[in-house]
Amino acid sequence: MSESKIPKIDACFSPALYPVYRDEENIVVIIDVLRATSAICTAFHHGAEKIIPVASVEEARRLKESGMLAGAERDAIKVEGFDFGNSPFDYMGPDIVGKTIALTTTNGTQAIEASKYAYKVVVGAFTNISALCDWLVKQDRNVLLLCSGWKNRFNLEDSLFAGAVTHELLKRRPELQLGDGCLALKYLFQMAEKSPARFLAKASHKQRLWKLGLKDDIRYCLQMDMTDVIPVLEDGALVKMKT
Amino acid sequence: MSESKIPKIDACFSPALYPVYRDEENIVVIIDVLRATSAICTAFHHGAEKIIPVASVEEARRLKESGMLAGAERDAIKVEGFDFGNSPFDYMGPDIVGKTIALTTTNGTQAIEASKYAYKVVVGAFTNISALCDWLVKQDRNVLLLCSGWKNRFNLEDSLFAGAVTHELLKRRPELQLGDGCLALKYLFQMAEKSPARFLAKASHKQRLWKLGLKDDIRYCLQMDMTDVIPVLEDGALVKMKT
Repeated sequence: MSESKIPKIDACFSPALYPVYRDEENIVVIIDVLRATSAICTAFHHGAEKIIPVASVEEARRLKESGMLAGAERDAIKVEGFDFGNSPFDYMGPDIVGKTIALTTTNGTQAIEASKYAYKVVVGAFTNISALCDWLVKQDRNVLLLCSGWKNRFNLEDSLFAGAVTHELLKRRPELQLGDGCLALKYLFQMAEKSPARFLAKASHKQRLWKLGLKDDIRYCLQMDMTDVIPVLEDGALVKMKT
Repeated sequence: MSESKIPKIDACFSPALYPVYRDEENIVVIIDVLRATSAICTAFHHGAEKIIPVASVEEARRLKESGMLAGAERDAIKVEGFDFGNSPFDYMGPDIVGKTIALTTTNGTQAIEASKYAYKVVVGAFTNISALCDWLVKQDRNVLLLCSGWKNRFNLEDSLFAGAVTHELLKRRPELQLGDGCLALKYLFQMAEKSPARFLAKASHKQRLWKLGLKDDIRYCLQMDMTDVIPVLEDGALVKMKT
């Protein structure tokens, strides 16, 4: 991108729509706040070395059988036979320090797979939002906020987070250009700012997790700035960005 | 749908995402307020008999060559050699009374094509919003608000209108279930309610039309309740619903 051009921020609401937004010059931010991208940030914060995102449970199982630690979640539940599910609390123990972990989730790892050829693919969650936004504005480059959604449908929590990122980026650089998606999300975030948890009360996936007794997970995932880690995709694996 | 079940309203932000939301029991509302669906409502209000939506300019040209009136728009501009473009003002003259018109547009007719096998496909715009919402609540059936967007991307004006429909439906039946898309749009509409035109000032397509000198079109398309007409798809053609 030429230096004189003001970067544009846009949002894509489903991995299935990514081909419409694809631009290999973009930085893509992968968003799946309940819970994959929150769990990924947590794992690096607690010392994981590398996370290999894979699209299928079979692939994750093969990697597990080869001796790797592996996490797998489908429909909000840990798949049997795996070391971890999708809960951030699974990724806090001493067993992950210095380790490589294979991970497959219902939505988040699909979004990573879809966008893997972008200029840079990074992972965002409320837990690393300030570190992420500080880094993003420094890049002076177009950004696509890729919401993982739920089985390719729009979801409220990822959109709300994308709105929070838009809000934070505008605080840092008010002249940024916004695509229509981010314009809408900026307003959405303004409605929710005072109490994101209450705002999300009716969101379909939050209700799904709530029914599964995962209140603590939700509470954890909505906390801002628990870590400075920015996970970045390098040669097909997520690693901690050196900033 | 069983009678005891409360209908659900959801929104789909791109014709390309329709397969993810497809349910042939749904009523689908086609939304392309700037300007296709506004123009379609206008044409019926002014006496058109039938509108045949076609996906390609070539198909519209073949119908024109067979003697039919035909409208074609691409990238907000009337395609050369056609009777009409996409402006509501093209569809107000005595030349359309009792006539069948072939129509192809950049976004709106693609959305109709995508959803044509739904239980019912109807056309919505600010110009017929009250008539549309009165009819929708009477059906007691799940509704999908299908935003045409811009070349399969999310756009602000169609989403805003879908938010307005959500708001109107909730006024008529507060217990309706909302999908995450409609939950977000309900809040978006609350932000915009006092001045939709000002709210849309930064929307990409409004700016596109504004640059083309189409301010009057925008003003017209944002007026509420100019007509009671509800266009409905029957055997591949839009006709005026008999209510």
